[in-house]
Amino acid sequence: MEATARLVRTWLEEAGATVRSKLRGQVEVTEKSSRTDLVTNIDKENQAFLVECIQQHFPEDQIQAEENGFDNLTNQSGRTWIIDPIDGTLNFVLERENFCMMMALYEAGQGRLGFIYDVINEKLYWGGPELGLFCNDEPLPTPVNKDLSEGLLGINAYMYAHNIHHAQEIGEASMGVRVSGCAGLEFIAILRGKHIGYLSNLSPWDYAAGNVLLDTIGFTYRSLSHEKLQFEGREYYVGGTPSAMQTMQTMQAK
Amino acid sequence: MEATARLVRTWLEEAGATVRSKLRGQVEVTEKSSRTDLVTNIDKENQAFLVECIQQHFPEDQIQAEENGFDNLTNQSGRTWIIDPIDGTLNFVLERENFCMMMALYEAGQGRLGFIYDVINEKLYWGGPELGLFCNDEPLPTPVNKDLSEGLLGINAYMYAHNIHHAQEIGEASMGVRVSGCAGLEFIAILRGKHIGYLSNLSPWDYAAGNVLLDTIGFTYRSLSHEKLQFEGREYYVGGTPSAMQTMQTMQAK
Repeated sequence: MEATARLVRTWLEEAGATVRSKLRGQVEVTEKSSRTDLVTNIDKENQAFLVECIQQHFPEDQIQAEENGFDNLTNQSGRTWIIDPIDGTLNFVLERENFCMMMALYEAGQGRLGFIYDVINEKLYWGGPELGLFCNDEPLPTPVNKDLSEGLLGINAYMYAHNIHHAQEIGEASMGVRVSGCAGLEFIAILRGKHIGYLSNLSPWDYAAGNVLLDTIGFTYRSLSHEKLQFEGREYYVGGTPSAMQTMQTMQAK
Repeated sequence: MEATARLVRTWLEEAGATVRSKLRGQVEVTEKSSRTDLVTNIDKENQAFLVECIQQHFPEDQIQAEENGFDNLTNQSGRTWIIDPIDGTLNFVLERENFCMMMALYEAGQGRLGFIYDVINEKLYWGGPELGLFCNDEPLPTPVNKDLSEGLLGINAYMYAHNIHHAQEIGEASMGVRVSGCAGLEFIAILRGKHIGYLSNLSPWDYAAGNVLLDTIGFTYRSLSHEKLQFEGREYYVGGTPSAMQTMQTMQAK
């Protein structure tokens, strides 16, 4: 896994440099399902680059990714790469910052490697259960296992406003809620011990890498929509410190 | 005003270096009105430093500030400095980032100078109607006058969840809402053209500097609680691009 991780880091670093340089020019934006669901030429080109890297080195592996018709995966056996070429596209388009690039490798449904790249700040969070958790070349310490009442919670604004799966009560039991518009940044905040959890409505490429890295440090996650995460379509999701997850589960079971 | 601005920049840069160095050590946290309303030794020490700077150079001037009993100001004639020594204290305590230092100078109720210092990123946004808007030594271009439907909106999570002053409808008419927990960062996002507005529940030291800088670029703000901002206690507040402000006003008048 270590050699593969090294290889993927070189892909992502190259992809990041390309994206940063393209961001200085014109970005072509297209609406997908609604006026706030956007995709850009950079999302698509970046995904094509990462898909090509995988296909060149690992031609047998499957790929699931947000754009270009790669979004469905029927078979979870074998090795699967899950890619979000630009996570936080609204931020990417409107702020030109506060977005990530994410990639994960699963084998027979088990997370092996996760990568979350904060492209603008050039910080790549990566690792896996066999390797540990790193930021660029530095190992990261495991954050304190804080409870819900002791920390900030990343949240989906709609879920909070409509108290979906007790999101509002949970938010009020935390120290405060934050809405960043980027799943990758929310996972980074948990991995660095700045937030205690993340409650949102996510697609597989939004949680695939984050889950591997949470697994790596003994933190947990679960689906609120199904018994287990489906890796298909959107579902309500929560992840975080073991203590906060326990407290939220109790609140959500009521 | 230019000489005063230069002087204040040296105070804030010194204060920022001190805060960054203290953040590496232990932070003493105390609850104020509730378990999520915190103050630290650093807030207090930093305010004391800035107050001393003002009193040394401008002994006649009045001061209004968040901590140490400086929070009430009865008389708005003359020159008044308004200080938030650490804006976004919860972020400061729990994330050790995503906070600002803010200062403003008013004369007979008119904003003359505003300073918002993103301490961790060492970016000081400052200026005034006579001087223009700067980030450190660089003049900043005035952002495009986007409408509500074209941009991201910084929002107070509670107002959004409870649709206070139509916050939820306004949020849904925007491209998306963001919750940062730091007024200064919200103003910076507007000044840099990343967000179109900010809807929140603020104290004078939360909006004093931001308003001066919005004035400087021809953007606007208003109180939703009173006919005009009171510079006393918390009140519902909105600021942003002229177009977005117009649209929000129409929605709020319904």
